[in-house]
Amino acid sequence: MEIKEYLQEYRKKVDKELEKYFELKTKQAVDLHPLAEEAVGVIKDITMSGGKRIRPAIIYYSYLANGGVSNEEIVKTSMSIELAHIFLLIHDDIIDKDDFRHGVPTAHRRYEKKALRVMSHQKVKEDAKHFGTSMAIVVGDMASSMTQEIIFNSSFPSDTIIKALNAMQEIVYRTLPGEMMDVEMELRGRADEEEILKMHEGKTARYTFEGPIHMGWVLAGGVSRDNMDNFSKYALPVGKAFQIRDDILGVFGQEDKLGKPVGSDIIEGKQTLLILKARERGNNSQRKIVDELLGKRDLSLEELEEIRKIIRETGSLNYSQELAERMVKEGLEFLHKVDFKNAEAKDFFEKVADYIIRRSV
Amino acid sequence: MEIKEYLQEYRKKVDKELEKYFELKTKQAVDLHPLAEEAVGVIKDITMSGGKRIRPAIIYYSYLANGGVSNEEIVKTSMSIELAHIFLLIHDDIIDKDDFRHGVPTAHRRYEKKALRVMSHQKVKEDAKHFGTSMAIVVGDMASSMTQEIIFNSSFPSDTIIKALNAMQEIVYRTLPGEMMDVEMELRGRADEEEILKMHEGKTARYTFEGPIHMGWVLAGGVSRDNMDNFSKYALPVGKAFQIRDDILGVFGQEDKLGKPVGSDIIEGKQTLLILKARERGNNSQRKIVDELLGKRDLSLEELEEIRKIIRETGSLNYSQELAERMVKEGLEFLHKVDFKNAEAKDFFEKVADYIIRRSV
Repeated sequence: MEIKEYLQEYRKKVDKELEKYFELKTKQAVDLHPLAEEAVGVIKDITMSGGKRIRPAIIYYSYLANGGVSNEEIVKTSMSIELAHIFLLIHDDIIDKDDFRHGVPTAHRRYEKKALRVMSHQKVKEDAKHFGTSMAIVVGDMASSMTQEIIFNSSFPSDTIIKALNAMQEIVYRTLPGEMMDVEMELRGRADEEEILKMHEGKTARYTFEGPIHMGWVLAGGVSRDNMDNFSKYALPVGKAFQIRDDILGVFGQEDKLGKPVGSDIIEGKQTLLILKARERGNNSQRKIVDELLGKRDLSLEELEEIRKIIRETGSLNYSQELAERMVKEGLEFLHKVDFKNAEAKDFFEKVADYIIRRSV
Repeated sequence: MEIKEYLQEYRKKVDKELEKYFELKTKQAVDLHPLAEEAVGVIKDITMSGGKRIRPAIIYYSYLANGGVSNEEIVKTSMSIELAHIFLLIHDDIIDKDDFRHGVPTAHRRYEKKALRVMSHQKVKEDAKHFGTSMAIVVGDMASSMTQEIIFNSSFPSDTIIKALNAMQEIVYRTLPGEMMDVEMELRGRADEEEILKMHEGKTARYTFEGPIHMGWVLAGGVSRDNMDNFSKYALPVGKAFQIRDDILGVFGQEDKLGKPVGSDIIEGKQTLLILKARERGNNSQRKIVDELLGKRDLSLEELEEIRKIIRETGSLNYSQELAERMVKEGLEFLHKVDFKNAEAKDFFEKVADYIIRRSV
């Protein structure tokens, strides 16, 4: 099976559970308050409008790989990481001032628009923005709270649940400093390669790969330490490669596939390996252009092309892509040391590594 | 023993555990990233600088009341609600644009100042504000994540832990729509009594009273449903009274005792029962003054006195205080139906109810 089929098939399964879960949360919210109902609606809409469900799929296949057999229960529990992801995205979108996520408006923009509809008094724009931020903070907190709930309401043995909560806590808790580094680097406007890679390790490698694999291993009973060790050594470089590819797509990807405006990483002034290498290898005039355009709020398409050209011409694009490929190769060596209890799971993890560096979304 | 002594004594116990916990989290953060260390420092500073620890004390005494005996373990686990409180305050302070909490700067203001120290580029003020908001969102998320961790790392039986996580989840999840109502009411600038009381029920009565009592009951084994029912009927009116008193102190309290500027509720334009009744009972000119001054960012002390006078003269102050007293009386009737396993706990809950309506902080 192709990796896209694996992901699509798992998406169908987990989306069915997500629909059921949101139905339940909506019913509960109706009893609570209309604002709670509205908030659950926002979380649901952002969740169901897009996303590859790669993290829940990884939990599922790691669970199978490590000998797990409760098919229905693992699908339900794997939703938790999707909610963690949505919670982090809702807060992240406030921080990055993003307008769209999964092709639909971000939470803070929805509430900002709502405020503009009801407001009549002074300082309208600024107040509406603050209203949007405020509501989206709370909506994110609601999604965060769902993350844990899904795990402790699952029907795995209590001891396993507690270990799984620990695993999820570690994923989220380690991701947050990565987020802070991101914010701080944007403020300072400079970063070095080591710092960028360290951030990727925190923010993506553990979050998107090693963490979900660990969750699946824990939920399957957490028996073989050796398996987990080898899985980690696979997941960390592959995860870093995933982020590098993400950054490439953030500059060179297609808007309709990504669900967010092309070049938004440039507009946001994001410090990536791509930018770092372009500055490092560029001549003075190229460096000057990069510094001028990075973080420019009203970047034109022509200017985006200019920065793309510099990233290509300095060899930064090749450097990044090749580094990602080397990392995937390194990771695969350790994957082959894992003792797989399930052949499909093995196939999945091999293909996912390859997909990482070829994907266009 | 006086209620203040009860609280002070419990504060000593729980603060010792909080110190130990933050020491551990700091050590972990050092391995993670300097920004994580800084964030833990901010959480610690805001937590340790103030707060009455009323919620952990309620968990503790409810645990004793319901027959619990693991003294050390309950003190440790009761910290969780203090962290939940800090997480909610950090996010709430962003929303309310507050500068101080417990007499020390709020999280977002700390980071805003930090940004101003390192920034040199354009749009400095706005960017620094956004940096402050962004970092404080993430710091709040870190504190949120600690809340759960404290519970699932406790040494209560696994089944009890899962029930306690459920209880905590319910406290936080129900509080969030209350927060949203607060934000929305400020935007709309109008509220009716029913809506205000409903908000109090969600935001404070369950959060500060019934929720912690429920947590203590769960941790003690959750045996007698009757006890919990009577405790709920005690906690809900007493909790509402607590909020009414809080609103009175927000306008009439002393700055040095509150740890935040006097009149900040007026400056923030908070819709409280106090304001509602003053508008309802006031004549046209009084109503006009209230509408003019409520939400005024540069409110003078003289203007604060003016609004206080109206609240007094319209009888709104008396109405609110008397309503709070009636509610406490109503709650105490049900407290006397609780089957207490511990005499000190009984004394505590009687005195806490009385304290609610007399306190000056």
